Amino acid sequence: MKNLTEGNITDAVIKAIEGTQDARAKEVMTSLIRHLHSFVKEVQLTQDEWETAIDYLYNTGQISGPTRNEFVLTSDTLGISSLVDIINSNPDGGTEASVLGPFYIEGSKMVEVGADLIGDSEGEPTVVSGTVRTLGGEPIADAMIDLWQTAANGLYENQDPEQPENNLRCRMLTNEDGYYQFSTIKPVSYKVPTDGPVGVMLNLQGRHAWRPSHLHFKVSADGHRNVITEVFDEADEYIEEDAVFGVRKSLAIPYTKISEPSEAERFGVPSPFYRVEFDFELEAL
Amino acid sequence: MKNLTEGNITDAVIKAIEGTQDARAKEVMTSLIRHLHSFVKEVQLTQDEWETAIDYLYNTGQISGPTRNEFVLTSDTLGISSLVDIINSNPDGGTEASVLGPFYIEGSKMVEVGADLIGDSEGEPTVVSGTVRTLGGEPIADAMIDLWQTAANGLYENQDPEQPENNLRCRMLTNEDGYYQFSTIKPVSYKVPTDGPVGVMLNLQGRHAWRPSHLHFKVSADGHRNVITEVFDEADEYIEEDAVFGVRKSLAIPYTKISEPSEAERFGVPSPFYRVEFDFELEAL
Repeated sequence: MKNLTEGNITDAVIKAIEGTQDARAKEVMTSLIRHLHSFVKEVQLTQDEWETAIDYLYNTGQISGPTRNEFVLTSDTLGISSLVDIINSNPDGGTEASVLGPFYIEGSKMVEVGADLIGDSEGEPTVVSGTVRTLGGEPIADAMIDLWQTAANGLYENQDPEQPENNLRCRMLTNEDGYYQFSTIKPVSYKVPTDGPVGVMLNLQGRHAWRPSHLHFKVSADGHRNVITEVFDEADEYIEEDAVFGVRKSLAIPYTKISEPSEAERFGVPSPFYRVEFDFELEAL
Repeated sequence: MKNLTEGNITDAVIKAIEGTQDARAKEVMTSLIRHLHSFVKEVQLTQDEWETAIDYLYNTGQISGPTRNEFVLTSDTLGISSLVDIINSNPDGGTEASVLGPFYIEGSKMVEVGADLIGDSEGEPTVVSGTVRTLGGEPIADAMIDLWQTAANGLYENQDPEQPENNLRCRMLTNEDGYYQFSTIKPVSYKVPTDGPVGVMLNLQGRHAWRPSHLHFKVSADGHRNVITEVFDEADEYIEEDAVFGVRKSLAIPYTKISEPSEAERFGVPSPFYRVEFDFELEAL
């Protein structure tokens, strides 16, 4: 009988999965097993530490449910989600991807170009606009802009029972020039939820839970690859230390303060207001 | 602003946790982050595969609860639990450790040396005995033997509402010669639970879920390091391919069939019966 040792157990596990039919699944599982075993060997993980790891996963499972996925937040705060985003970003250019995060909801209300999302919301008025284009610079009409963001209190609508449904979320089709525009309030920096295992981990790691302020976008158009991304305020105090590693240089832009009343009047917002201009470039499929 | 890329994001995450106060936690987390990132880069994990991984963890959390921990089973079936056992086995000798598994319960009934656990159980009568010793060979009196095993249907008492409480589990103190003995029924090979995410994974990997038959033991004595281990029937058809990689050469022994009625009479069991002799060696603390 072959004796299992620290030196041969990894190969024994790899051998056990050699019957995996799907070649890609076999490749991924083999790599995962090798790296997890290497980690355990490298640190000579103790039984107590193994139990701590199992407890982390168990508690993360217990706090998760239909409206909260603490595994996604774990992946986000360990930089894994962003790494996957970077790996899968379009190598030929176009808008860079960034984390989807846990607050996206499908089917937000449809509005027209130029819509006012401010309603009764508190916060600083902000006009956001831009063009959706091909990599060659051609405008894309009828591209779908799907937006979600925090209110001034740092909470998304689906975290906050005080906010009306669809608050500061919308979908909009670009016009014939590929143009989109809406008035909203300036998003604010906020903390990821710290009342679960991720909060315990961040605390252990001596880290804060802040994300720099940003607008979330999912942009899609027929014949093009979707992009899920975030548009950050480059002046945010947390721009260099996003708790989930979502910031890219190309996604951090000026949120410019405009004080001319005539400009405010032109956009139909109170003065002063902020102006955000961001163009999306989509890869053809 | 530093741009996050596939080349530098891992270091950025490591830098984010540099404030970790506990040096060991920092070492373990750093290694875990490096290995998880290396895995993602090595296979160039896709967004769909990332979602599959998140779904696996989420579903594993949802099926887990006070009486079932699918994360432990995941660790077991990926050979991680056994690797941790091997790493933490006593380097100076003594009985090798093997997986605790999910079926241990604290506080099983106390019985005397020579106890009959068979009661009304179906199955093949088996007499198990041995000595608990120091590494130097001295018998250890009043060592605690804690035993649990399957019934003939392949289920542990806490998996099976048909079995009486404490069925085929017990605790026993060794006598002045360090000796323990009990009559039981021969454990059988059985499948780990396949009705959850682990079952889906094993199926994808073309693996079976069988474990070779074994007796679980936790042995402890004042002034000595506990050992949690399993004693396998070396003739079991799955001895070379345990689904959770628990078998060690030193733990796979003969379950010898004895057909002399006088021997059966001596032990007070029906004839024929099986005889299992296994000594435990504990390291002094």
